[in-house]
Amino acid sequence: MSWRGIIEQYRKYLPVSAGTPVVTLNEGNTPLIPSKALSAVLGAQVFLKYEGLNPTGSFKDRGMTLAVSKAKESRARVVICASTGNTSASAAAYAARAGIRCVVLIPKGAIALGKLSQALIHNAQVLALDGNFDEALQMVREIAGRHPVTLVNSLNPYRLEGQKTGAFEVCDQLGVRAPDYHAIPVGNAGNITAYWMGYKEYREKNIVNSRPRMLGFQAEGAAPLVRKKIVLKPKTIASAIRIGNPASWKKAEEARDESEGLIEAVTDRQILAAYELLAKEEGVFVEPASAASVAGILKLHAAGYFKKARRQKKKFRVVCVLTGHGLKDPDRAILSVKKPKTIPAKLSALLEAIEL
Amino acid sequence: MSWRGIIEQYRKYLPVSAGTPVVTLNEGNTPLIPSKALSAVLGAQVFLKYEGLNPTGSFKDRGMTLAVSKAKESRARVVICASTGNTSASAAAYAARAGIRCVVLIPKGAIALGKLSQALIHNAQVLALDGNFDEALQMVREIAGRHPVTLVNSLNPYRLEGQKTGAFEVCDQLGVRAPDYHAIPVGNAGNITAYWMGYKEYREKNIVNSRPRMLGFQAEGAAPLVRKKIVLKPKTIASAIRIGNPASWKKAEEARDESEGLIEAVTDRQILAAYELLAKEEGVFVEPASAASVAGILKLHAAGYFKKARRQKKKFRVVCVLTGHGLKDPDRAILSVKKPKTIPAKLSALLEAIEL
Repeated sequence: MSWRGIIEQYRKYLPVSAGTPVVTLNEGNTPLIPSKALSAVLGAQVFLKYEGLNPTGSFKDRGMTLAVSKAKESRARVVICASTGNTSASAAAYAARAGIRCVVLIPKGAIALGKLSQALIHNAQVLALDGNFDEALQMVREIAGRHPVTLVNSLNPYRLEGQKTGAFEVCDQLGVRAPDYHAIPVGNAGNITAYWMGYKEYREKNIVNSRPRMLGFQAEGAAPLVRKKIVLKPKTIASAIRIGNPASWKKAEEARDESEGLIEAVTDRQILAAYELLAKEEGVFVEPASAASVAGILKLHAAGYFKKARRQKKKFRVVCVLTGHGLKDPDRAILSVKKPKTIPAKLSALLEAIEL
Repeated sequence: MSWRGIIEQYRKYLPVSAGTPVVTLNEGNTPLIPSKALSAVLGAQVFLKYEGLNPTGSFKDRGMTLAVSKAKESRARVVICASTGNTSASAAAYAARAGIRCVVLIPKGAIALGKLSQALIHNAQVLALDGNFDEALQMVREIAGRHPVTLVNSLNPYRLEGQKTGAFEVCDQLGVRAPDYHAIPVGNAGNITAYWMGYKEYREKNIVNSRPRMLGFQAEGAAPLVRKKIVLKPKTIASAIRIGNPASWKKAEEARDESEGLIEAVTDRQILAAYELLAKEEGVFVEPASAASVAGILKLHAAGYFKKARRQKKKFRVVCVLTGHGLKDPDRAILSVKKPKTIPAKLSALLEAIEL
């Protein structure tokens, strides 16, 4: 049977009824790609959950299909969000499909080109705030509290409910079992929260017989959960996790502690190294923030973190969530590489250039 | 069971053996999205086959997984292609995964930003040719004929073999039946050729009991198949189909004639209108070339083409292939929309801007 999106696939685990209008772009069902390079390094089975292959190019679509479906069910006429880019792209696309007006507030000058183009082309009203993400989020929260608009940031509980299906899917793809470790970038902290919800639920319902340790990774310059304090001016090249005061702070700590996992920081240099490794060795192009999960497990490996796991279980399983597609931020890729050389339309010039 | 890419999924229909190394990014398995707006207009069931959700963001991955797997099987050390962008992105990604060197030749200044960033980040040697696509293709053909490099343009027969799985998937997703019409953009004409191969094969093997009419659409300024002559200076905003001398010219005509379909031209204006309709009403973001299939069926509908089908069969089925993701060409989206307005970090400014 054809895949019809995460609401139909996981309907019985979600707060929907027969009367809920399903606003879907057939999101989910993203590849779980075995990583040869990382498996060799860790001595484990490492998989890449390529969430960049959701319809708008990021993991946000899982939560957005549910949030916008529920907004439509409640006859909302406007949805609003603050965004570092991926949320606005997703909100704009699903709102367009639902025929609901969408307003997005972005930090001025801090959004990757691809993402900005998405919100605009899907007809959202895009407002650039002279401020950062945390201020933008504060403002849309206040507006949604006082006016008839539906907030579709991850504070909207339906976002996390939809997002938890990522965990269900990972388990289903692994042959109905949980991985041993789940590595994930942490920005606003909704994603780590949702995945943990999903893993717990599958365990509680006896679909799987274990739960992974949650390994969250923030960027060094935007690591409030690691520093245990708000970062007023978050700074990192990984714009999707450039957040200094995460909305799901407490829940992310619970996920970390309940799962006996950790949340650590990785440097921009480590993120970019992982970004290039994924592109050049695995053939997988991600936005920089996505590479934080891979940078994180490499850092942990170097520190000996997986030694015990390797002793206990020969082939332990690690899943790294890759949250967004590299096409979201083409400028970053262009910055990372040499420009193409121009040659005249002559065979000899081509032969010379490729040095056969 | 987890999806493992088109070679594993359709192995028995493909020229592979147990000894073929499978180089895959779990491509294929892309959504078939029902289109409410187009279904209403045509009085049909219209589906969007969103091939932009393949790993590198375009339909090319289906053929490339097979072409690069076979190149690896034959111990090739270099793969080469000419490209308007999507082929090079795909070739670079799969070659990176296979550990094979990749050389791509692109027409200078004629490649969308996203696509260029992909080939570069996947470590291909990118050469910008002072010439157009057709000249670039001619050059790489000559090189591949005389030197130990494997051509991975669609002249490579494995490309079409892999690509035909798109037709299998459409049939499988429709409940193991073929659509009545299959609409598709036509550039180098490999895709229409491959889909027709796939539909014919499924029919011959009695998997389905009918075949669709193939409806191919070229851009008005790059329509050699419609004009019945080579276009020396092809011109269209749809860079992915800006091709004046298609490699699969004859096979595309066969697909058209055997299926009792047609190949027509659509204007850039019609392409952009379809591009915006998809983004603003369906929530689906594509690169401009992809919108040619939708522009095409709207043009045919306006001319009364589907009247007979509607009389014969109440809900005839139309599948439009959307070949590439909109993120491939963010600049085009930015050109199509108003720039975001900047507001200060004050609630009153936000309220005023959104006119609640």
